[in-house]
Amino acid sequence: MSAGEIDRLIGLLARLPGLGPRSARRAALHLLKRRESLMDPLMEALGAVAASVRLCPVCGNLDTRAPCSICADPRRDGTLICVVRDVADLWALERGGVFSGRYHVLGGLLSAIDGVGPEDLGLDRLQARVAEGPVAEVILALPATVEGQTTAHVIADLIEPTGITVSGLAQGVPVGGELDYLDDGTLTAALRARRPV
Amino acid sequence: MSAGEIDRLIGLLARLPGLGPRSARRAALHLLKRRESLMDPLMEALGAVAASVRLCPVCGNLDTRAPCSICADPRRDGTLICVVRDVADLWALERGGVFSGRYHVLGGLLSAIDGVGPEDLGLDRLQARVAEGPVAEVILALPATVEGQTTAHVIADLIEPTGITVSGLAQGVPVGGELDYLDDGTLTAALRARRPV
Repeated sequence: MSAGEIDRLIGLLARLPGLGPRSARRAALHLLKRRESLMDPLMEALGAVAASVRLCPVCGNLDTRAPCSICADPRRDGTLICVVRDVADLWALERGGVFSGRYHVLGGLLSAIDGVGPEDLGLDRLQARVAEGPVAEVILALPATVEGQTTAHVIADLIEPTGITVSGLAQGVPVGGELDYLDDGTLTAALRARRPV
Repeated sequence: MSAGEIDRLIGLLARLPGLGPRSARRAALHLLKRRESLMDPLMEALGAVAASVRLCPVCGNLDTRAPCSICADPRRDGTLICVVRDVADLWALERGGVFSGRYHVLGGLLSAIDGVGPEDLGLDRLQARVAEGPVAEVILALPATVEGQTTAHVIADLIEPTGITVSGLAQGVPVGGELDYLDDGTLTAALRARRPV
């Protein structure tokens, strides 16, 4: 059908999340038509990322510096540590621009089904980091799923003996949320956590 | 938020069709987590494609050979030329595996709005190719849109003086199509072009 090289590129593009075989073909053709403006820069960007981006040895963030620019920034509050599942969640919080502390990226969640235990997430590394540093509060910004909440409970149990505050994200109505489109669980949680206006 | 190199990669991935800013972030993270299994092979595949894939000087197909493997294949019927808009349409017809002739890729459609004229599509090149070769029939496999049908009419007018048969794809009910979900235009066309069972 098409040259082997193009087929191979389509096969690899189809393995990206959000692209299937059909959109991978479109993407490959799009790249082939825009060599100078897109394909060459993309190759360069992939090369630059592969050569320079590493995991931060302190928090698990991805950056060209080690420790990462958040861990190395003296303006960030070292007494606040926000625990997230993933670098994507760290990026989401940074886009919000409200959190001024530091992070700890787990790289996953505890899951009996997938066989992910505390040692796979390096929870002892988190415990040691919290014990060493001038940490006053650990914020567990983990998904409101069974795995997320299980992981949050396990981390809370590990850290609570040290006397450091452990908190979680508030649950309630999302901004712009219509009540009759919300699930019962969210509505119940929002009602229980009601507060004076 | 994240390192400049990662942001640059995300920006380029977001320019692929089917990916927005959000899915480009997911794709970049997916690549960063799978360096050996996906990022390195993708860089290699892009390099191989960039180094070897060229436009076929005869038909406009993309291939590592020039002329392309379809133009060079002696088993393909040189008396049949199928005119398509795009390499994607050529790939779609090749996946069907029914057409055994050769192709001519226009690279676009005539469009007064976008300022695409006959010279941009190289219609004189198509006319010369048809006049030179042992062509018996030109099949216009162009989209059933205003631009597609305008282009088809212009090409038919160019080729008809030579006496060569010019045909177009049949219009009608698509395979698996439910009548009450079809638009009126398709249903009318299918009724007009009815045939004995």
